[in-house]
Amino acid sequence: MADLTVSDWAPGLLLGAGVELPDDVELGGHVVIHAGTVVGAGARIQDGAIIGKPLALGPRSTAPRAAPDPARIGPGATICAGAIVVAGATIGERAVIGDQAHVRERAVIGTETVVGRGSAVDNDVTSGARVRIQTGCYITATSTIEDDVFLAPGVTLTNDDTMGRHGPDHELRGATLRRACRVGGGVVLVPGVEIGEEAFVAAGAVVTKDVPARAVAIGVPARVVRQVSDEDVLEQWT
Amino acid sequence: MADLTVSDWAPGLLLGAGVELPDDVELGGHVVIHAGTVVGAGARIQDGAIIGKPLALGPRSTAPRAAPDPARIGPGATICAGAIVVAGATIGERAVIGDQAHVRERAVIGTETVVGRGSAVDNDVTSGARVRIQTGCYITATSTIEDDVFLAPGVTLTNDDTMGRHGPDHELRGATLRRACRVGGGVVLVPGVEIGEEAFVAAGAVVTKDVPARAVAIGVPARVVRQVSDEDVLEQWT
Amino acid sequence: MADLTVSDWAPGLLLGAGVELPDDVELGGHVVIHAGTVVGAGARIQDGAIIGKPLALGPRSTAPRAAPDPARIGPGATICAGAIVVAGATIGERAVIGDQAHVRERAVIGTETVVGRGSAVDNDVTSGARVRIQTGCYITATSTIEDDVFLAPGVTLTNDDTMGRHGPDHELRGATLRRACRVGGGVVLVPGVEIGEEAFVAAGAVVTKDVPARAVAIGVPARVVRQVSDEDVLEQWT
Repeated sequence: MADLTVSDWAPGLLLGAGVELPDDVELGGHVVIHAGTVVGAGARIQDGAIIGKPLALGPRSTAPRAAPDPARIGPGATICAGAIVVAGATIGERAVIGDQAHVRERAVIGTETVVGRGSAVDNDVTSGARVRIQTGCYITATSTIEDDVFLAPGVTLTNDDTMGRHGPDHELRGATLRRACRVGGGVVLVPGVEIGEEAFVAAGAVVTKDVPARAVAIGVPARVVRQVSDEDVLEQWT
Repeated sequence: MADLTVSDWAPGLLLGAGVELPDDVELGGHVVIHAGTVVGAGARIQDGAIIGKPLALGPRSTAPRAAPDPARIGPGATICAGAIVVAGATIGERAVIGDQAHVRERAVIGTETVVGRGSAVDNDVTSGARVRIQTGCYITATSTIEDDVFLAPGVTLTNDDTMGRHGPDHELRGATLRRACRVGGGVVLVPGVEIGEEAFVAAGAVVTKDVPARAVAIGVPARVVRQVSDEDVLEQWT
Repeated sequence: MADLTVSDWAPGLLLGAGVELPDDVELGGHVVIHAGTVVGAGARIQDGAIIGKPLALGPRSTAPRAAPDPARIGPGATICAGAIVVAGATIGERAVIGDQAHVRERAVIGTETVVGRGSAVDNDVTSGARVRIQTGCYITATSTIEDDVFLAPGVTLTNDDTMGRHGPDHELRGATLRRACRVGGGVVLVPGVEIGEEAFVAAGAVVTKDVPARAVAIGVPARVVRQVSDEDVLEQWT
């Protein structure tokens, strides 16, 4: 059975062996934290959150199968209600993993980054600081997200041109989202695309090739129509 | 720790202080209801539902930070399994909040309205009666949905043209969905769009400007191609 | 109240009457299994999963209202954390229902099929063997999915041209996905579409009519641009 025991620290709390849980952590009801998880000071874990969940890969998944390290939750981070943080994930200081969101093994979520309600960050994604991933986004495995990126609701990233037909040496090609780029609601990125620094992709676009830095891209397939103005770059707003 | 105590009224039930829970409410397992929540007669709350969850805004969220009022669940409403109703939300009579769905603070869900499985209704949304939001939709903050609107699966609404680059006085522009309009599967609406009464937006469209009443709009960007016929208006079907 | 009692077999486990649960089933924390559910040998059920949940249809839903049979979980299947399997669903041998995924009444999930994280399979869907449904897909009611189909992240299927305006005899038209077809990220299918055997639909497409076998379709609306090459058919990769 699960390596979990009932703790009376909070109602319904289940803890695995060796969980590090500082005194000032705030806990909701029915939280589950698996063995070895390290939780930082001042973290907040809401009702029904599950942290350090063991892997359960599909029979044909090509993701690495070695048992990942325990999950690490940074100081001051919030894991919201019903969120799942898989073993091996690292959540940065003061980051927020939204209600019903999902972060997979070996994903690294940066300082003060927010993963919106119901969004999913897959394995081996690296996200910088102050990234804002809104509701219902999917960040495909092996993607890189730099600091201050903004993803509007419902963005879908993909990483496999072959859709499952490749040998063991085939490398998945996640997206590369450069510093301070913005990607609009419902946008779809084909595998391996790079969105340049300070670029802006309009809602509903399907991005089939790289978008240069500072470019504004719209449509299906997305095409560059102008540049982001000087008044719109991030420095004007921080 | 969480202001929750174990109740023996139902298995795994956790209750905050002062929850109003009539005798005829039907409760599943592991339900969590936070302090002050008011549940109406004959309501049904399924396994793992979380009601009255406290706010957990991201560090850069512009949503109001004052602690909202308790959640209110109307008579005969159903909160399905794994659904989350944040403090400050109001769920109407006989409304259904689907499995794994999400309703945020100050959202108002009308009588007999259904929020489909996994869909999210953000803060300060007002929804009328008999609205049907299907699976996997995202209703962005400050949107207004009138009576008898139908949203097909996977509809995404947006409200911020700047994608996070605006001052404190910037007003978010949610969608306005007029009475009995219908919005097709996977449709994306740019910020501030109004869909007119009895209008019909076809699946896959990206709506970049207002759609007039009774208009049928299709494509990317959506354009009006004809009118909804007299046989198709709502009065013919109720 | 819920027909559930606390079991000491696993922490937080709630069981309905007459659940068949073999000795070698692996159970996480806070699992809920409703009355009559049959779980196969060697199955794995992770934290917070809910199996056999009773129906909770909306007031205007046209789905059949008769109480479905208990859920059946096949030998060696995995029900991941936070997943919900509604009463009446049948999960095949060694199938994986991903974290936070959802399978409805009378859906049949085939052997070794994977329903990705957060994806939803609606009522009366039939899925074959070795199907891979990635993260965040929506499989609409009455769809048929044959063996070895691949659905990339964020695919949305629809089944109701009328968007809720039809009489009781109106038949919903789910999708038909033929053997070994592949459907790209964020694709939307209008009601009743058939994707042919070994066909390939590119990311971001909106499919408005049938796609022939072996065809490659792209765009909005999707049009056929070439054939899948001999090197790309499934037999080359298994």
